[in-house]
Amino acid sequence: MRMVDIITSKRNGNELTDEEISFFVEGYTKGEIPDYQVSALMMAIYFRGMNERETLTLTTEMENSGDKLDLSAIRGIKVDKHSTGGVGDKTSLALTPIVSACGVPIAKMSGRGLGHTGGTIDKLESFDGFNVSISTSEFIDNVNRIGISIMGQTADLAPADKKLYALRDVTGTVENMSLIASSIMSKKLAAGADAIVLDVKTGSGAFMKTLEDSKALAEEMVRIGKGAGRKCIAVISDMDQPLGNAVGNAIEVREAIDTLMGKGPEDFTELVMTLASYMIMLGGRASSVDEARALAKEAVKSGAALKKLGEFIEAQGGSADQVYHPETLKVSDKCITIKADRSGYVERIICDEVGVSCMMLGGGRASKEDVIDLSVGIRLLKKRGDHVGTGDDLAIVYYNDEKNLSEAADKLKASYVISDAEPAPQDLIKMIIE
Amino acid sequence: MRMVDIITSKRNGNELTDEEISFFVEGYTKGEIPDYQVSALMMAIYFRGMNERETLTLTTEMENSGDKLDLSAIRGIKVDKHSTGGVGDKTSLALTPIVSACGVPIAKMSGRGLGHTGGTIDKLESFDGFNVSISTSEFIDNVNRIGISIMGQTADLAPADKKLYALRDVTGTVENMSLIASSIMSKKLAAGADAIVLDVKTGSGAFMKTLEDSKALAEEMVRIGKGAGRKCIAVISDMDQPLGNAVGNAIEVREAIDTLMGKGPEDFTELVMTLASYMIMLGGRASSVDEARALAKEAVKSGAALKKLGEFIEAQGGSADQVYHPETLKVSDKCITIKADRSGYVERIICDEVGVSCMMLGGGRASKEDVIDLSVGIRLLKKRGDHVGTGDDLAIVYYNDEKNLSEAADKLKASYVISDAEPAPQDLIKMIIE
Repeated sequence: MRMVDIITSKRNGNELTDEEISFFVEGYTKGEIPDYQVSALMMAIYFRGMNERETLTLTTEMENSGDKLDLSAIRGIKVDKHSTGGVGDKTSLALTPIVSACGVPIAKMSGRGLGHTGGTIDKLESFDGFNVSISTSEFIDNVNRIGISIMGQTADLAPADKKLYALRDVTGTVENMSLIASSIMSKKLAAGADAIVLDVKTGSGAFMKTLEDSKALAEEMVRIGKGAGRKCIAVISDMDQPLGNAVGNAIEVREAIDTLMGKGPEDFTELVMTLASYMIMLGGRASSVDEARALAKEAVKSGAALKKLGEFIEAQGGSADQVYHPETLKVSDKCITIKADRSGYVERIICDEVGVSCMMLGGGRASKEDVIDLSVGIRLLKKRGDHVGTGDDLAIVYYNDEKNLSEAADKLKASYVISDAEPAPQDLIKMIIE
Repeated sequence: MRMVDIITSKRNGNELTDEEISFFVEGYTKGEIPDYQVSALMMAIYFRGMNERETLTLTTEMENSGDKLDLSAIRGIKVDKHSTGGVGDKTSLALTPIVSACGVPIAKMSGRGLGHTGGTIDKLESFDGFNVSISTSEFIDNVNRIGISIMGQTADLAPADKKLYALRDVTGTVENMSLIASSIMSKKLAAGADAIVLDVKTGSGAFMKTLEDSKALAEEMVRIGKGAGRKCIAVISDMDQPLGNAVGNAIEVREAIDTLMGKGPEDFTELVMTLASYMIMLGGRASSVDEARALAKEAVKSGAALKKLGEFIEAQGGSADQVYHPETLKVSDKCITIKADRSGYVERIICDEVGVSCMMLGGGRASKEDVIDLSVGIRLLKKRGDHVGTGDDLAIVYYNDEKNLSEAADKLKASYVISDAEPAPQDLIKMIIE
């Protein structure tokens, strides 16, 4: 088998055989097939696409290219969750304790990653003493003992995807549904859960800007998940403005705790409860999504979910006190407010501008080596549809370093689009793909 | 400017600017842009194509990527010729002395290359003592003194094309008209002639199998040539069977000399006279192609062309005696004949099979390091349309080493397709593109 023949075959519009896909993934992972052949193949796939079988084979080949998490020692149906990412997305922090409190084991491996804020793992480090670098056996013990653990990604999951994604990123071959879906799903499958709930964002702040594209991606991922023998459901949710009111790290953890206390922002609470319902249902703890939602609500109302977060934080070296007293999570004292210079309705809040503003404050990483300042962040006081008067506070910026402050504040201010007409309300949950 | 943006732009169907094309050709030649980005761009070009301006810019950027031959010290209009290649294509050997004898200076740089037989340079080495490695000043002096010189490619002409072609060859991105045409023309332009006659082959033994594709390539190359300020004409000629009767090296030189003596095979003679006519016309020695053809005929008839070949060979260290006595060019004494095992008409002679047969005998290079045996080869005794009886000789194989003989003979025999019906005659010259 020769790589050039595989490239030419795809270029000519043929389906690749399972053997051909296996050949190139394995050869590329081992360094036997050079980047320049793989990038040509990726471009051919960009133009010719891959069918369902090819996409599933590519995904499972990448899944099998490195370590795989074995969760078989954990009792019950393990349910994982993945978000395609957006601004203010602290969902895992509130979601996982609720689901765990309802009896579904949460064994989640999570990354740091690049972006506007830190990843879940970075945010969890807002708790004093919290340890993300636990061993796999400790991880599994914790899940069996208290029903939840989240650890940093230590295992070499889907290295083929890592290598391939880095190549696609610099060769103009990212934007293909099969490649995007297989990239996400290969890592999720290697992380070992029995069921996966996908939170696919849609809108200007999402990777997929249109509902049509988001739906196509969600369908592709659900097909892969089911094809690989997992239960899989996707929720398509709005990312046309930041999620909730807090953007940052410690400030997002506080908002997640508020939500577990029943006083979270409406949009964020709705998303958490929807995702929780599907996770609880897939985890076999409810026979319908309505029944599952009732369980999730009760877990919040009774304080069981908050208690679960406390147990989780304590099991990994932190103090449950901080869960019950989120004001002890360090958010900077230094702040300025952003004011409206006209009256009207908030028509849009441009997600990317808010995100970049937070990153400029030091709340996110532009490159892997950057150190995150967990205490900086943004609180949005007005959201889409709110009426504002001239001079009203739109948002608060919590900062430490004055260096980029004025530029970050300008960016944040520019993210608010204020118009005379009241915008039509938008659904937070757009669609469920199962 | 970032390479990934250039790739994405072409991928999305945009035209590349001259600056973008210049950026990637220069960056790639210098090794600043990696193979994996260029191969992705090549695949995007495969799917999206390039317009006339982009193709011309790519060609001239590649032309300017290395050395360029300066032929300004040579008096007169320098006319070069390029063939897209086929089996039995010894055209330059007979053509250039005729054109030179008619007063058009021939200053030709020629390669060795890979393939079924050697290149023009290899074939010329059939003359004892002939030296292809002359200096550029000797080359130019020879042309000014006797009107003709052919030297091996010493200068680093169009290194960008060399690098790009090697990459395209292993990434499934060869088959694009703009890329093929710019690759050929960049080298021809760098070789410095004022006018170029292109011999574009068509048929099963050609790179372009259909007349439609051959025409498209010819038109693309003529457009480029004219766009770069050169006179340019393309002749589209048949390569559905080997050209002439001889396939090899010394044996092809003998056939070229026969043709200069007026006793060459009909098809080969016709091609040589046609190409010669256009070269003489472009070289300003005739005002019409008919007038030019009359001059070419006279140059053969008078012996001036043969004499010119003698002068050329002698000027580069060989002996004119071998030109007048081609039987002294070493063709192996050891031979076998291939016989027809049925009667009928020769419907086809599959070029590639004949070519591979010659290469197996040692007459061509499979890889750069191979040493060619100039004395082996094939003489086709029957051509398309000839009637044969059972047991008639179809061809003679001249060999030295018995190692691959029977396999080579089988291949040669398999190249003859004999049928009951007499095939329709085919024109040798299909079309002129000017």
